Amino acid sequence: MDAFLADLAGIPHSRDAAALRVKSADFSWFSPIMSAALGGRLADVVVSPRNEEDVLRIAAACAKHRMPLVARGGGTGNFGQAVPLAGGAVVEMTALDKIVFQRSHVARAQAGIRLVKLDEELRKNGQELRMHPSTKKLATLGGFVGGGHAGIGTVTWGILRDRGNLLGLKVVTIEETPRVLELRGDDVNLVHHAYGVNGIVTEVEFPTAPAYEWLDTIVVFDDFERAAEFGLALATSDGILKKLVSVHAWPVPAYFTALKPHLPDEKAAALLMIGSETREPFEALVQSFGGTITLCVPQANIYEYTWGHTTMHALRADRSLTYLVCIFPKDYTLAAIGRVHRKLGAEVMLHLEYKRFNGHMTAEGVPLFRYQGFEQMTRLYKAFEAEGVRIANAHTFLLQNGGMKDLDEKQLAFKRSVDPRLLMNPGKIGGLDDLPGGLSGTALEAAQLPASGWAY
Amino acid sequence: MDAFLADLAGIPHSRDAAALRVKSADFSWFSPIMSAALGGRLADVVVSPRNEEDVLRIAAACAKHRMPLVARGGGTGNFGQAVPLAGGAVVEMTALDKIVFQRSHVARAQAGIRLVKLDEELRKNGQELRMHPSTKKLATLGGFVGGGHAGIGTVTWGILRDRGNLLGLKVVTIEETPRVLELRGDDVNLVHHAYGVNGIVTEVEFPTAPAYEWLDTIVVFDDFERAAEFGLALATSDGILKKLVSVHAWPVPAYFTALKPHLPDEKAAALLMIGSETREPFEALVQSFGGTITLCVPQANIYEYTWGHTTMHALRADRSLTYLVCIFPKDYTLAAIGRVHRKLGAEVMLHLEYKRFNGHMTAEGVPLFRYQGFEQMTRLYKAFEAEGVRIANAHTFLLQNGGMKDLDEKQLAFKRSVDPRLLMNPGKIGGLDDLPGGLSGTALEAAQLPASGWAY
Repeated sequence: MDAFLADLAGIPHSRDAAALRVKSADFSWFSPIMSAALGGRLADVVVSPRNEEDVLRIAAACAKHRMPLVARGGGTGNFGQAVPLAGGAVVEMTALDKIVFQRSHVARAQAGIRLVKLDEELRKNGQELRMHPSTKKLATLGGFVGGGHAGIGTVTWGILRDRGNLLGLKVVTIEETPRVLELRGDDVNLVHHAYGVNGIVTEVEFPTAPAYEWLDTIVVFDDFERAAEFGLALATSDGILKKLVSVHAWPVPAYFTALKPHLPDEKAAALLMIGSETREPFEALVQSFGGTITLCVPQANIYEYTWGHTTMHALRADRSLTYLVCIFPKDYTLAAIGRVHRKLGAEVMLHLEYKRFNGHMTAEGVPLFRYQGFEQMTRLYKAFEAEGVRIANAHTFLLQNGGMKDLDEKQLAFKRSVDPRLLMNPGKIGGLDDLPGGLSGTALEAAQLPASGWAY
Repeated sequence: MDAFLADLAGIPHSRDAAALRVKSADFSWFSPIMSAALGGRLADVVVSPRNEEDVLRIAAACAKHRMPLVARGGGTGNFGQAVPLAGGAVVEMTALDKIVFQRSHVARAQAGIRLVKLDEELRKNGQELRMHPSTKKLATLGGFVGGGHAGIGTVTWGILRDRGNLLGLKVVTIEETPRVLELRGDDVNLVHHAYGVNGIVTEVEFPTAPAYEWLDTIVVFDDFERAAEFGLALATSDGILKKLVSVHAWPVPAYFTALKPHLPDEKAAALLMIGSETREPFEALVQSFGGTITLCVPQANIYEYTWGHTTMHALRADRSLTYLVCIFPKDYTLAAIGRVHRKLGAEVMLHLEYKRFNGHMTAEGVPLFRYQGFEQMTRLYKAFEAEGVRIANAHTFLLQNGGMKDLDEKQLAFKRSVDPRLLMNPGKIGGLDDLPGGLSGTALEAAQLPASGWAY
């Protein structure tokens, strides 16, 4: 460690116990299973590069001293993306927060910039991010690209992986003489959603979207299935501007205490972001479905009750809850939603985010339920699959076992080329960089949960 | 007529024979059937209002003197929208060409403005029309809204009727004391695509789209079905900016003489407009399909070889050709395209425009073939329908027989309220304002061609 730190002279770092604890954690505590599997994993040092030169020095020192490392953005991942499985260095990227350039509909920024700051800067020029996670205020650009996959905006633009949403990535390899790669075209997906183990992303280039005046909107319905039907109709209303279509069965809205005045008891609620420019045709759509608009105002941050934040609000109220992550079929979406709700609604609370995904509109769900153990989890996974719903394993920290990333030969060859000593958070890729002794206990059980996968 | 003209004192008008001939014609000559049915129909006077006040005076005078009238934009319709079936006045709207306002993402303009001029004005503020017909250089805003339904941009935004693409219409009724109506929300569809018989549109309010830097692009393929598959993949690549995806089986490209250097013999060709901002991911998509890019430049007006213009280029070369208008099913789109091409490809030349339509991606086709009469036309209609392809009757001038407009009770009640004396191009709505003696000959046969309709 001393030799390693000597090589980093001048680069801010900390070995303070509190800092190590905070910077070794992410939002994997959402899952009681992952929480148990990852508990107590700590980095040995937090290093905070100030610029790309520092990143190159850190990469070289890690390679030279065989020091494991984990690049860290806002630490908002739910899958242990930022938890150092094998100790070593946490590389905190948040000082690399410059916008490299912004042209009319394209921008490039350093990976450590907070999405909220980036979005604010883009909006000064009438542009905004095509999509962002519900954790926009904390999450960084590099963290979103490395560990995320979609978010608010995906209902219009598809997921990050879909061609056109990422234009270029600058990546530093972990070698004694690190290389700086510029990945373009389909090659961006070698690093996107690789949980940070395929090199350190230092810059991201992406197309921006026009900054419409979004209205944070709630529409309530007597019936969840009607709300889901409305959600799909809105999501596929190509002429209506929308950035978010999120539909919640009661009692999920009961967890959104700050929105209580707009969420009547027993009603299903659609939480939406609608472009003010198409408010009238939106209202006509609401009327045709018999919904009631209870809120329609700018800048209410309603997105912070959707996607991952829905889970957070529920867990804040009730720590006995857990969830699974599923994707409804692109065909017969509503039929599958209805069947799941009718068959399992007594045990699971459904909420949906409509998303474009691989060219199709569909709905993602993160149903909430009281956790009773692996047997229940497995039973529920199978019950969803029986209705044609695909399940991601949201309770394992292993990259490929989640079911969202297809680690094919090309991906693995790239991994070996950018991280030949397998120093980037070793233990994330089962079969390649397993930790000594392999998985056991909860971590092993979690990895073995069934996942039908999203071919992600 | 004299009393009518006296009421219009000061409003420019003409009874010159050449003017009457020119202003009584539109692009219905594309169809040999419609051409025969509409031949010789002439207006008695061309009136050219200078402003809305003139329009009100004309409407009042028509009501008072029982003068039939036809509002006319650029005269680019293919369905006799601008041909006066019962004589009377042609009301030429092109002097009403002012932009009423332009805000960040919404604009409002007078109905007579040429789309090309409107688009140029919008682009000065970084905006453009969401969609326009291939006749953008001639067509007017009011004509597009009254007689059109979709166009270049529909692959992203859907069709004009889809909620959100039209925000408001100002409409003058044909009464002795004309009313000025402002239609908003779903009510815009009472007048949109009513072939101009539901009141005179004087202003249109609509959302605008960001003005990307479009690259006019051609990609060629050995095989038409592969080109169609590529087209659908591009059309549903939500992250890639595109305004046009038009796919042509050989020998259709042979008719595009000005593009000959970019259209190799025997190859299927995709004519595209791609946002330069997402050119790299687009190229990655082309590569994954094995296509060859033969053109990729800004401002080549490639749209003037697609949609209705495809037919025009073919007819210019060979007047024995005619066409039918079809829509492929939203599910199994490629399978249906493939079956039609394999079964009927020897007789019909396929080309496709991918379009979003009622929330779904699908492909419209205007297959070209050598015209042999009604029997052949009927046989082909049925052959397409047998493959699950819906057919519009593109050879009748009757509004509801085309199959694209559902003239329900609400529509008919609105028609009666805005035009109580049935003066707006009488003869367009079968069963309501039939001409004396009704249809006969070619017009009758044409109206009876089968149409599975688009529920439009």
